[in-house]
Amino acid sequence: MPRSREIHLRQFATGALSSSNFELVDIGVPPLSAGEVLVRNRWMSVDPYMRRRMSGEGGYLPAFVTGAPMEGAALGEVVESRESAFAPGDLVLSMFGWREVFKTRPEHLQKIDPRGLPARAFLGIAGMPGLTAYVGLLRIAALRQGDVVLVSAAAGAVGQVACQIAKLKGHVVIGIAGGADKFAYLREIGVDAAIDYKAEPDLAGALTSVAPTGIDVYFDNVGGAHLEAALRTARLHARFALCGMISEYNSGMPGTGIRNLFAATAKDITLRGFIVSRHTDLREEFLHELRSWVTAGKIRWRETVEVGIENAPAAMMKLFSGENVGKMLVRLD
Amino acid sequence: MPRSREIHLRQFATGALSSSNFELVDIGVPPLSAGEVLVRNRWMSVDPYMRRRMSGEGGYLPAFVTGAPMEGAALGEVVESRESAFAPGDLVLSMFGWREVFKTRPEHLQKIDPRGLPARAFLGIAGMPGLTAYVGLLRIAALRQGDVVLVSAAAGAVGQVACQIAKLKGHVVIGIAGGADKFAYLREIGVDAAIDYKAEPDLAGALTSVAPTGIDVYFDNVGGAHLEAALRTARLHARFALCGMISEYNSGMPGTGIRNLFAATAKDITLRGFIVSRHTDLREEFLHELRSWVTAGKIRWRETVEVGIENAPAAMMKLFSGENVGKMLVRLD
Repeated sequence: MPRSREIHLRQFATGALSSSNFELVDIGVPPLSAGEVLVRNRWMSVDPYMRRRMSGEGGYLPAFVTGAPMEGAALGEVVESRESAFAPGDLVLSMFGWREVFKTRPEHLQKIDPRGLPARAFLGIAGMPGLTAYVGLLRIAALRQGDVVLVSAAAGAVGQVACQIAKLKGHVVIGIAGGADKFAYLREIGVDAAIDYKAEPDLAGALTSVAPTGIDVYFDNVGGAHLEAALRTARLHARFALCGMISEYNSGMPGTGIRNLFAATAKDITLRGFIVSRHTDLREEFLHELRSWVTAGKIRWRETVEVGIENAPAAMMKLFSGENVGKMLVRLD
Repeated sequence: MPRSREIHLRQFATGALSSSNFELVDIGVPPLSAGEVLVRNRWMSVDPYMRRRMSGEGGYLPAFVTGAPMEGAALGEVVESRESAFAPGDLVLSMFGWREVFKTRPEHLQKIDPRGLPARAFLGIAGMPGLTAYVGLLRIAALRQGDVVLVSAAAGAVGQVACQIAKLKGHVVIGIAGGADKFAYLREIGVDAAIDYKAEPDLAGALTSVAPTGIDVYFDNVGGAHLEAALRTARLHARFALCGMISEYNSGMPGTGIRNLFAATAKDITLRGFIVSRHTDLREEFLHELRSWVTAGKIRWRETVEVGIENAPAAMMKLFSGENVGKMLVRLD
């Protein structure tokens, strides 16, 4: 019987995460039944949205269950199959989360064909985060010629793609991120202006100095003070794609919310929230465009990699202290 | 030389209004020059948006000027004219605000033809507040069949019209207002459910009990806790028309904002702000529909009337303590 180590949710999280929220568990995986597939994960995804599921409240996805594995995306390799559509060596995406080995039925696996991309890119730029950037800009904010585009958490998994797609579509792009490393990375990926919010006591002022006529589109990954600054500097008829609010996920009940939402009334701003899983009809179009950009060397991405399943909790905590640049991954050897 | 009494802004307002913000001034109106028209106001409008202009901050309209009259809509009668297009007795709308008598050039006057409506209705249901309700529901929230519609400040000038238009368009309508009088009025105008928020410690709970499957459209006149409750009870793909936030206008810098805006992301909600003056292309269509509803006895409205220009400041204060039902007007005899 193969062994698997898993990271379970030990207790619901309120406030900042700590190692006491997680538990490393060693289990035996039972033999395959007919129609089942055995998968060994190679890469696990660490995503901000998982934090919300740890709070016991649910949301757009059910809350995680204490004493059960942390669910999420992973890239694995088939090691044994009792199902004709899968063979050992196949690369598969799954949503079973932080486990080394698992068995499942084929409908829960998505075979991938990397074609020129590293397989793990399907957890990042070619996967959910990349599609999120594409959907948010092209469908939700509905980019149009001449838009000045602001992206927050711009050096993160989604933000790095959003900045570059907006540039490739011909826009002036401003990226906000925290710290000198991320600031430097934003310049590398070609944003027109980068703002290190940790070095700017007055975010709205910094925004105004790089976009004196205001912004037309805001791709929000942060919420809170970043969203307030964007509302303050938005131009008439601006469109905001509300993708995520990482500044708030660690708060049990946020004490202070968005205080200047009246700007939406004053400036005819549209704020539209979205969850990428409701927009997967754009996936093929996105992958087609992405492959052409990759082939032409017009897009790049970064990853922050932790090694070993025992370090997944630390990877999650680093995501919230902002220590990652680009996509946060855990590699399993 | 005719005399005119005017209400001037004496000092900028922070927090709740008081009589010290206003000053009653008596002036002489100089004789008409060629091309000018002399108007005696009969009805003055008292509107929530004027409060924002009193704070010295401006916004989508410039801040009022201290020592000058409170600008706003008024209905008057031409008493003397040196311009061929206007004759004594003509009814005219203007934006010169809280003054008894004024002279101006014809381009600043809009002649009205009441045709079956009381002239003062052009400050209310047939004027800016009525058009605001129409634009917010039909263009901004884009009502579609089956929508459950929530309206806040539902017994106010805009809200009373929004509730009835939504009913006339075939929707289930929930109105929120404060106090037993307004609650009773909402039942009179035919809402499916009325909520007296002053009697409900748990607004979101009250909403859920009358709309167990949630709301699809929210017409927001209030902001704050009302907007939070609407976000909490909104259904997937809900649309919010952000018309005004009267709960916040008296706050210099609101201490607490909207704390659950992440619901927009989780439920693909669109929030769209608007100012009716940018949507006047719908005015003729609106007036056409309104006249047919009035003729058929399908729509009604209420007004709260104060008498005499010296009582305009009190009328404004009553608007913010919620003492009006329907449109707040000042009658000048």
